Amino acid sequence: MATLVTAPRGMRDFLPAEKARREHVLARIRSVYAHHGFDEIETPVVEDAARLHSGLGGDNEKLAFAVMRRGLTAPDLQAAAGPLELADLGLRFDLTVPLARFYASHRSELPAVFRAVQIAPVWRAERPQKGRYRQFVQCDIDILGEPGQLAEIELLQATGEALAALGVQGTFVRINDRRILTTLLRTWGVAEQDAGAALVVVDKLDKIGPDGVASELVTLPSLAGRAADDLGTTLRDLAVADWGSVAGADWLDTDAFADLEALRAALPDAHLRFDPTLVRGMGYYTGTIFEIAHPDFSYSLGGGGRYDGMIGRFLGQDVPAVGFSLGFERLVDLVTLPEAAAADAVVLVYDRDVAPAALAALKAAVMHEHGRVRLERRTKNMKNLLAGLAQQGYAAFATVGTGTAGPADLEFRPLT
Amino acid sequence: MATLVTAPRGMRDFLPAEKARREHVLARIRSVYAHHGFDEIETPVVEDAARLHSGLGGDNEKLAFAVMRRGLTAPDLQAAAGPLELADLGLRFDLTVPLARFYASHRSELPAVFRAVQIAPVWRAERPQKGRYRQFVQCDIDILGEPGQLAEIELLQATGEALAALGVQGTFVRINDRRILTTLLRTWGVAEQDAGAALVVVDKLDKIGPDGVASELVTLPSLAGRAADDLGTTLRDLAVADWGSVAGADWLDTDAFADLEALRAALPDAHLRFDPTLVRGMGYYTGTIFEIAHPDFSYSLGGGGRYDGMIGRFLGQDVPAVGFSLGFERLVDLVTLPEAAAADAVVLVYDRDVAPAALAALKAAVMHEHGRVRLERRTKNMKNLLAGLAQQGYAAFATVGTGTAGPADLEFRPLT
Repeated sequence: MATLVTAPRGMRDFLPAEKARREHVLARIRSVYAHHGFDEIETPVVEDAARLHSGLGGDNEKLAFAVMRRGLTAPDLQAAAGPLELADLGLRFDLTVPLARFYASHRSELPAVFRAVQIAPVWRAERPQKGRYRQFVQCDIDILGEPGQLAEIELLQATGEALAALGVQGTFVRINDRRILTTLLRTWGVAEQDAGAALVVVDKLDKIGPDGVASELVTLPSLAGRAADDLGTTLRDLAVADWGSVAGADWLDTDAFADLEALRAALPDAHLRFDPTLVRGMGYYTGTIFEIAHPDFSYSLGGGGRYDGMIGRFLGQDVPAVGFSLGFERLVDLVTLPEAAAADAVVLVYDRDVAPAALAALKAAVMHEHGRVRLERRTKNMKNLLAGLAQQGYAAFATVGTGTAGPADLEFRPLT
Repeated sequence: MATLVTAPRGMRDFLPAEKARREHVLARIRSVYAHHGFDEIETPVVEDAARLHSGLGGDNEKLAFAVMRRGLTAPDLQAAAGPLELADLGLRFDLTVPLARFYASHRSELPAVFRAVQIAPVWRAERPQKGRYRQFVQCDIDILGEPGQLAEIELLQATGEALAALGVQGTFVRINDRRILTTLLRTWGVAEQDAGAALVVVDKLDKIGPDGVASELVTLPSLAGRAADDLGTTLRDLAVADWGSVAGADWLDTDAFADLEALRAALPDAHLRFDPTLVRGMGYYTGTIFEIAHPDFSYSLGGGGRYDGMIGRFLGQDVPAVGFSLGFERLVDLVTLPEAAAADAVVLVYDRDVAPAALAALKAAVMHEHGRVRLERRTKNMKNLLAGLAQQGYAAFATVGTGTAGPADLEFRPLT
């Protein structure tokens, strides 16, 4: 019986205290992004299957949930060569493909430089595991139509302020440029057709170390015969590189590096750390890439970059674009709800025998004074219940009996 | 090309001004329900297919979008007797079936009387038509575990306040009780097996009038041979019935009517109008039913009722329940965003040749003063753009050039 009433595999129900925390975090993020002048938009959770499988989603396309055509008959199933023929829609696996589709559809109604916010769930049919869910929320901001660094600056300013508004402190930003990686690979002698595979290897530096990366790199066709030690030396330098240490290095793309230094000068409070080994997975990045890191966590709290070529694939015309995605599901675990002020949010614990109309009138009167009022029927174990209410922001409680004539009869005690 | 970039059939993209309006309405509703002590919860947008098709969703079950099993092969398709065998999940078509599942799953973690808020999209594969969408938002409040009228009173109080907070005035509440309808049908001689069909006919009173209803009713097996005129007389009385006119009527369930009168006394400001012809479609209602109406609109702005038997079907134990659903998609069209205060929310119109870092620094300084700042690149036609920004709550704008050294150089003009 138990499995019959649980949420589908890999997905979650949110109980009141957790839902309140999620809504608190979302409201804070939404407010900061709105104050920074970003425009919130919304698209349907499903997209046409052909669009989801157009190659812009990388590996995520394989994880899309497919929605079946309506009105299919048994002969339709017999005639189908494969399951995708039976699906006309799919649940979105990210917010970037829908944004590209949205922008192509509505460009004439949008400003020349479009600053978009999207806060919404996405779905991926991944093998469920701790911290990975099949439905999770993404918080994306994107600036479309701005080729200059104003876009990167605004994204990083808004993101930094969102983290500050959530009380998340001590973060820094790892920053790199895809052009720096491209030049680095070229210096090593990696041929263009091996560049993608080489980036996947460099991206493992945190996990397998400089020598591990070097020994995998020399298995690439264009590096055949190269000594791993040779690359290892550069990789050890790269792993500890900072703004000062790379000056004059032969692998450094000086134009791209100068752009990063200009960003650093424009964002003195953003704690930018140059990291020439930062790759970020998606194939569509073309310029600046960045990730929010925290010394206490091995995972990033968000990241993004410039992807100038992608929007054009829907629009048939190139549009410069920079995007940033906050790791909402990770952030929400770091944030605590602010404590309720003593005057706000109270709980009235009532006996079953208080007349409904009298109780409702009392509730209305107490709301007038306290704003938020929760009725709670007296049960044997009130302790856990009241602790849970404190987590939802309730501050005090009073008991109501048949003798309670009005608010003056109530005696409030703190919940915690 | 154009069809390639539009939202899927029957679904909508929301542009910034419309999205802002929707979020404003949602925030208001959410705030009122929270103040009334309701607990917000969230469930996944998909549910197991077996659960969606368990008979609790009425006709809506036929409209569910089905999600295909992952990893299906061509032989799986050949072997399937029908499409539903290939689907293990489906998009929810309402929030009531998920609530029943949630409650059965988490009851031990919830209070004895559980006051739930759910604000979330649902999906129905209806034929798209004006005002009907395949993805739309429902705003439901439900009270589970309270057998007495406190539940009805709290729902109606919270709902009335939500409408007031949205500035929707002049509404009234049509109210009835399923027991009154049951007694009425029995008085007419309708057999129990015809009762469902009879309610469907009575529900058409608005459209086909008392005589139309009467002539359809006499086609029911248990009313065979009855004169339509006979029923028509009662129906004409019913159509204009009010609290005073029904006293002593032979068809009136006096217990149920006394309960409604008690509700009316407890809610003097709720404008309850007794309407013995109110049916509401869903088969699961067992007691009080109500609908928010407005003299200017032929459609209702929301409705609900008591459905004491339903939760038990998941839980295996009866739980009293009353629910109310606001017609969000209709409400959102009636609400206008409040006008921005002059000091808040400004737009900076910039030339392409202003240095990015200088512009970003200026934006930060102006945000310090005005809170919300939108950057907008100067284009040929700024007029439409600025009008759209006014709709999003921006109040004033100033232009920025290469000569703008700081906030003191800005001259703000109103946007509208």
